[in-house]
Amino acid sequence: MALIVQKFGGTSVGTVERIENVAQRIKKFRDRGDDIVVVVSAMSGETNRLVALAQSIDDKPNAREYDVLLSTGEQVTIALLSMALNKLGVPARSYTGTQVHILTDSAHNKARILDIEEKNMRSNLNEGKVIVVAGFQGVDEEGNITTLGRGGSDTTAVALAAALKADECQIYTDVDGVYTTDPRVVPEARRLDKITFEEMLEMASLGSKVLQIRAVEFAGKYNVPLRVLSSFDEPNFDSDDHTNNGTLITYEEDEMEQALISGIAFNRDEAKLTILGVPDKPGVAYSILGPIGDSNVEIDMIIQNISADGTTDFTFTVHRNDLEEAQRVLTQVANDLGAREVKGDDKIVKISLVGVGMRSHAGIASKMFKSLAEEGINIIMIATSEIKISVVVDEKYLELGVRTLHSAFGLEEK
Amino acid sequence: MALIVQKFGGTSVGTVERIENVAQRIKKFRDRGDDIVVVVSAMSGETNRLVALAQSIDDKPNAREYDVLLSTGEQVTIALLSMALNKLGVPARSYTGTQVHILTDSAHNKARILDIEEKNMRSNLNEGKVIVVAGFQGVDEEGNITTLGRGGSDTTAVALAAALKADECQIYTDVDGVYTTDPRVVPEARRLDKITFEEMLEMASLGSKVLQIRAVEFAGKYNVPLRVLSSFDEPNFDSDDHTNNGTLITYEEDEMEQALISGIAFNRDEAKLTILGVPDKPGVAYSILGPIGDSNVEIDMIIQNISADGTTDFTFTVHRNDLEEAQRVLTQVANDLGAREVKGDDKIVKISLVGVGMRSHAGIASKMFKSLAEEGINIIMIATSEIKISVVVDEKYLELGVRTLHSAFGLEEK
Repeated sequence: MALIVQKFGGTSVGTVERIENVAQRIKKFRDRGDDIVVVVSAMSGETNRLVALAQSIDDKPNAREYDVLLSTGEQVTIALLSMALNKLGVPARSYTGTQVHILTDSAHNKARILDIEEKNMRSNLNEGKVIVVAGFQGVDEEGNITTLGRGGSDTTAVALAAALKADECQIYTDVDGVYTTDPRVVPEARRLDKITFEEMLEMASLGSKVLQIRAVEFAGKYNVPLRVLSSFDEPNFDSDDHTNNGTLITYEEDEMEQALISGIAFNRDEAKLTILGVPDKPGVAYSILGPIGDSNVEIDMIIQNISADGTTDFTFTVHRNDLEEAQRVLTQVANDLGAREVKGDDKIVKISLVGVGMRSHAGIASKMFKSLAEEGINIIMIATSEIKISVVVDEKYLELGVRTLHSAFGLEEK
Repeated sequence: MALIVQKFGGTSVGTVERIENVAQRIKKFRDRGDDIVVVVSAMSGETNRLVALAQSIDDKPNAREYDVLLSTGEQVTIALLSMALNKLGVPARSYTGTQVHILTDSAHNKARILDIEEKNMRSNLNEGKVIVVAGFQGVDEEGNITTLGRGGSDTTAVALAAALKADECQIYTDVDGVYTTDPRVVPEARRLDKITFEEMLEMASLGSKVLQIRAVEFAGKYNVPLRVLSSFDEPNFDSDDHTNNGTLITYEEDEMEQALISGIAFNRDEAKLTILGVPDKPGVAYSILGPIGDSNVEIDMIIQNISADGTTDFTFTVHRNDLEEAQRVLTQVANDLGAREVKGDDKIVKISLVGVGMRSHAGIASKMFKSLAEEGINIIMIATSEIKISVVVDEKYLELGVRTLHSAFGLEEK
């Protein structure tokens, strides 16, 4: 009926029993008539075991050999899953990244996929075989084994779906979909049936760990319908859809009744830096942010205030782990520029409203600020993009802020 | 100075520390100026772990996928050893069987090497790199991963040495060479400096576990000088030779002062079967041995006696594990042929004198029989080949027989 790419992560294939469960699930799709390409990760714990072996030899192991080592993790899983499928009477054939020829660049440990040869897979599918592909790995032009970096199996699945023009790419995880916000913070959080690629990207970049950002970008670029669903739930074949479970990530559709706001994301990993009383002159922004960038610290939000006295204040956020380093660099910069003071604060969080509906609706920002103000939550920084409004608040307000906004925008209702 | 292929088995690379020791050893050869190609097995225990995983899914796992699974064991070792070498400042590069293109037939789990592409290796060697190749594995014409069967890493090493026309192929094990006989039976047993391929083949086929028979055959066929040595001893660079350690297996050389007898091998794994009183007629040998062969039992020695009364007796030996099955088949055959009786005996051993010197010296067999007779050891069966004389005796005489012959032929003296 359909060509579906299914990806199972390390937890879903963590034991022989779970691998057998995955085989049973695939059989149900095959029995319905679907063509199936499966992408698997290493069994949970396996990659860590291999990393520890490498680290015990060299804390900066040779990058090429590191990929040779790590790629064995997924190779074990493809063999075991193919055995389990064949045992169930479902003809299956495994492929390493080299065998399926997932061509990547030569950036070991973080390679990017350039091309996928679909000819052999196509002929296997025509013979009725299930194809089981090792995620996370590829091969460069010279035949060296490469890996895509942690979480790269999602990207492998999406890339295969794009190459094969699959009807759907299903990412099986230990959660059953994408939620309006983290249910641990807001128990009323609701699973979304659909979300757009852009919204998912914003959610993912804000720390929603359901999907790898690169995989979502890839799916958006090649318009691969992507579904997040739980490997522990039974498939639901009741509708015409490929399965009713989980959350479908797709392009915005005209007929889709578009919610104003899809979800509320938050990030506890940020810290804030302020440099006060910088003499204002052209190029001052670069002279402050340049050295920070040079020290490999990534900057998230940036705000500049012009004071009346001819000086200016800069505030920006970085990852909490980078606060110390950024503060060190900034203190040096402040001395050079004759600035008054440098302040660091890691007791902050970022809360973001995400929704493509913002594009066509005014008044969302003011409603957000009003709701927070009514609860006495002071906003420290504000940043906006086309489909996102983010505020930085004191970390003690995280739960209250998220719950207030979740309720104010009616996200618990369908 | 020389191009040397070095093979390290599972015990020699069983831990990270041992892998680092192997890297140190390779560095000593590199520092001397040798070009080195290394072949490694899976870390000890790893192959068993993988086999257990497969068995827990299917007791007859899909053969193709079994090879995909098992081949990861060596892949882990090549990566770790290459990391360890690079850490020591010795440039190294790993190759899987697929990458080095060890072309095999498609007989999964017991493939045979057809060809090896040496171009890439040659250019790596010219760049001063150590090449680290996964033993035991290859790739068939369609790109499927194959394995050569247990112990196949020795064969990989010899095949690489043949393809690269290496000066020597060194097999590192946990023993320091080939002995005149098992030192656990004869404490005076002496390590041989040299032995011929043919003698080594006879020793190996008689249960001397130092080398795989296929590897010795391969080395003989392509005239690859093969050295067995211990991975725990320091290399000895004192002579012009590649290293003075261990035992060199090579072709018979004219100038070599040839010992009459090189060694005494024995085999405790045999059992004897006798079928008595078979009516003698043409084709009777086949009608007895055919059904045994059909039941996949391998026969070693065969003796036939013609009795005076028009009947004949057959005696032959099989592996002890096969005795029950062979006896079952033979009893059926005896009924069909109207033979008198079938007897089985697993309390026997085979002792063999091996030496190319036999070819040019008469009287060795009679000296052997005389020595055994003087100790009251009764000979049950005798078989001879060009460079071997084997006798079957009661198993209680094993140690006495081996020691008697070791001393009678002066093997403890150089």
